[in-house]
Amino acid sequence: MGRWEPNARGRLAEAALELYVERGYEQTTVAEIAKRSGLTERTFFRHFADKREVLFSGSDALREHLVNAVAGAPESAAPIEAVTAAFEEVGALFQEDRERVLRRQSVIAANAELRERELIKLARWSADLADTLRRRGGADPAASLAAEVGVAAFKIAFERWVGGPGEPDLSELIRESFGELKTVVAGG
Amino acid sequence: MGRWEPNARGRLAEAALELYVERGYEQTTVAEIAKRSGLTERTFFRHFADKREVLFSGSDALREHLVNAVAGAPESAAPIEAVTAAFEEVGALFQEDRERVLRRQSVIAANAELRERELIKLARWSADLADTLRRRGGADPAASLAAEVGVAAFKIAFERWVGGPGEPDLSELIRESFGELKTVVAGG
Repeated sequence: MGRWEPNARGRLAEAALELYVERGYEQTTVAEIAKRSGLTERTFFRHFADKREVLFSGSDALREHLVNAVAGAPESAAPIEAVTAAFEEVGALFQEDRERVLRRQSVIAANAELRERELIKLARWSADLADTLRRRGGADPAASLAAEVGVAAFKIAFERWVGGPGEPDLSELIRESFGELKTVVAGG
Repeated sequence: MGRWEPNARGRLAEAALELYVERGYEQTTVAEIAKRSGLTERTFFRHFADKREVLFSGSDALREHLVNAVAGAPESAAPIEAVTAAFEEVGALFQEDRERVLRRQSVIAANAELRERELIKLARWSADLADTLRRRGGADPAASLAAEVGVAAFKIAFERWVGGPGEPDLSELIRESFGELKTVVAGG
């Protein structure tokens, strides 16, 4: 107890995800997660507030990545261009981690409360992206619209990536989704 | 108890909204709502599952209105045109009921759980609009994108209507928001 455990956080997260997939999220207890990872419940609670946080703790890092990508986009980039490029970067990160992202997604999809939490996470991304666009000098409602439609285009690309046949490339699907967005909004 | 009360549902809803505004949503009990409306708790529960449902029971009717408007749009209308026209209709309904809609919105804005419920409501609208567009013959991802960006443009118009100075017209703001959407997505 209390001693340093190498990569405790990663081991706990992996054990939790395994159990959520095997037994279902609701049926899994923190005690079981601790046991599977060879660590204690106490160690679990040093790293995560509860078993839900295991699924959402990566979200802040992704949000920061998005926000930094938009903040660092060339001044000449239109808001939608900055947002598209930022989501393509996130897409590449997901692509590298495809197997884990898909397992996480299967857990989220099976539970109504987690699906709601996921929507709320995306709304937070959108709000932060809009703030970042405003700090770059974008005015509203354009900044809010670019952020909202960016999240929408990403969400739809992500759903195709998860549900689609074969092993599509997420960054490619994101580019397609933003391209399709132009056609749709233009009334095509 | 059990006898017919004229417009019980409307009286309960109005009493609830008054109390949520005066005392806060969390602080209000069903007993207080019943008392304010001159009805019984039993009557309340014949009309609403709980005090939250009072705020969201109108949502299904609005969703149906949206869906019917999109389903009934001329065959020649592009998905985004059908969606824009549907939201303009909803905007006109809100506009007629402005005072009550704004009071409801102030209650939602003050409570994190209600704000989340509102997001989930909008996600449901988007899913149903996408279904309706597919039934009209729209293919994905275009149908899903048109639905998602429609909800986004509506949401931003609604926020401007609620927060904006003066007494703007919601249908007008919705038209502006969809117009701005074209500019934003085109990279303007």
